[in-house]
Amino acid sequence: MNLKPKQTVLALSGGVGGAKLALGLTKILPPEQLSIVINSGDDFEQLGLHISPDIDTHLYALSGRDNQEMGWGRRDETWNFMETVRELNGEDWFQLGDRDLALHVLRTQQLRQGRSLSKITQSFAKAFGIQHSLIPMSDDPVRTIVKVKENTKSGQQAKIENLPFQRYFVEQQCLPQVVGFSFDGIESATASPDFLHRLNDPDLAAIIICPSNPYVSIDPILALPGVRQTLISSPAKVLAISPIVGGVAIKGPAAKMMAELDVPATPAAIAAHYGDLLDGMVIDQLDSSQAQTIRSTGLPVLVTDTMMVDLQIKQSLATQTLAFALSLSGSNG
Amino acid sequence: MNLKPKQTVLALSGGVGGAKLALGLTKILPPEQLSIVINSGDDFEQLGLHISPDIDTHLYALSGRDNQEMGWGRRDETWNFMETVRELNGEDWFQLGDRDLALHVLRTQQLRQGRSLSKITQSFAKAFGIQHSLIPMSDDPVRTIVKVKENTKSGQQAKIENLPFQRYFVEQQCLPQVVGFSFDGIESATASPDFLHRLNDPDLAAIIICPSNPYVSIDPILALPGVRQTLISSPAKVLAISPIVGGVAIKGPAAKMMAELDVPATPAAIAAHYGDLLDGMVIDQLDSSQAQTIRSTGLPVLVTDTMMVDLQIKQSLATQTLAFALSLSGSNG
Repeated sequence: MNLKPKQTVLALSGGVGGAKLALGLTKILPPEQLSIVINSGDDFEQLGLHISPDIDTHLYALSGRDNQEMGWGRRDETWNFMETVRELNGEDWFQLGDRDLALHVLRTQQLRQGRSLSKITQSFAKAFGIQHSLIPMSDDPVRTIVKVKENTKSGQQAKIENLPFQRYFVEQQCLPQVVGFSFDGIESATASPDFLHRLNDPDLAAIIICPSNPYVSIDPILALPGVRQTLISSPAKVLAISPIVGGVAIKGPAAKMMAELDVPATPAAIAAHYGDLLDGMVIDQLDSSQAQTIRSTGLPVLVTDTMMVDLQIKQSLATQTLAFALSLSGSNG
Repeated sequence: MNLKPKQTVLALSGGVGGAKLALGLTKILPPEQLSIVINSGDDFEQLGLHISPDIDTHLYALSGRDNQEMGWGRRDETWNFMETVRELNGEDWFQLGDRDLALHVLRTQQLRQGRSLSKITQSFAKAFGIQHSLIPMSDDPVRTIVKVKENTKSGQQAKIENLPFQRYFVEQQCLPQVVGFSFDGIESATASPDFLHRLNDPDLAAIIICPSNPYVSIDPILALPGVRQTLISSPAKVLAISPIVGGVAIKGPAAKMMAELDVPATPAAIAAHYGDLLDGMVIDQLDSSQAQTIRSTGLPVLVTDTMMVDLQIKQSLATQTLAFALSLSGSNG
């Protein structure tokens, strides 16, 4: 059950969870058959530097530079820059490691010189020895905003506050109650040229939505003008791997967000969230009882081990997900 | 032999040599009586960051953060940022330490936000616990250019190349043959408000030109519109300490530059370079034979130990220089 030589696969990915499957996919597909499109809605400016957290997570994970002990950031990191920033009374709620900083400083310099985020990401990936294409979803600024309930005294009407994603995620540690999301700049943004090119490839066989947070990692990608419609009309099979396993999110605030949005934290709810763009759903064996619920909506389901605790399982999940996609399209080589 | 309570002193300084005397002066004068004006002609942009080498040298030296083993930069430094910059094929001829980087990143951010170099320097000094005023010579960009002979094949006419100072000093390690200097932007720059304020203080008793390179550390300060004339007409006594001792520069390329400019590397030549703005000259005891030559031009000379190998000598040289200035003005309290 293999791809035909010219067929291609597109992965849509966000942070740490998505990067795990992306790494698995790179181990089973050659560079010319796999591209990874990465959320840039998390990007923001800190200390005057352009930070692209999801892109950097992929640069580190796919080059073996990720810090597996911390679960984020870079291996062999030191923190002397931040220590001095604190000495100088600079903003210190977002930690920038000494090694990590090189990406931000060079990216900021090159963006100011007019180079696109796509070209910059490509050159960083190459320098890190990554063969596969890492493609930012857009070269235009899109900023994910988390709408949260402000703390108010009892009796007062609750106000809604707009928090830039990293303020919600890092500074406020996902504590505020989420009521919704918006993506600033999305109307005037366009999908990056490479993303559009791969999306419209007539040999595109599968689009794999990695087990990332649907609201803040995948939705910004899907919200880019034309992208969702192109996914629906594409002959390529679109699959999602549930980031929710056994009622919790493997990483990040997805389950907490779902609870606050009055959505059950289940794979079925994830499938319903993506709706008509899906051709299949991959869920964990812990959630096998959900398979029937999802199938009853007409959506094929693959039940397997999705807990990517080591490289072998990352690779195995990638293999099974791809085989599932090919089985749906009948394009079994 | 002390200053009167309201009298003030202004030091003009450049890099490491100047910062040594500046430190000595801070040990004998209270903050309200001493200000240090620092060359910003060495400033440049590297990796998109605004670097102010001479200002940072003073921030480190005056707060005890200077790296005395290396002779430049900051104590307890690490180099993981630069290592990653090299991994990413970024420009690496100018070394930026992980701790040092905090000054450059925060300064760049604040300059972009419209804050002046003076205000930024003031806040950094305060954060580092420095009580005395560190004043950039100007808030406007002035860039020292070293004019050097280009390498040409024999028989060809030698061409003149304009090297930005740090390219000459760091990248090319002062190897090219110097033929002159210019200060880009000097015509439209103004001395910083604090500099002008201290310079026009009616209680200004002495202006001390630190033992810095006259061509590239002090001349940019003197070349600011109006500054040289104000020094000449000021009732305050203007003294220079020779950076040349026994025919060599204690630090940096001053002696090499003098040789290339066909000027003898002597304290007398330094005195002649500053010319009519001086009221007195301080030279090392190694050069006592020069005292008569200088005195024969009508300029008073103090001969003493100017080799500031420890804090005691820095402080002693500061004390003697100040006493010499006061003796010239007869304002002996």
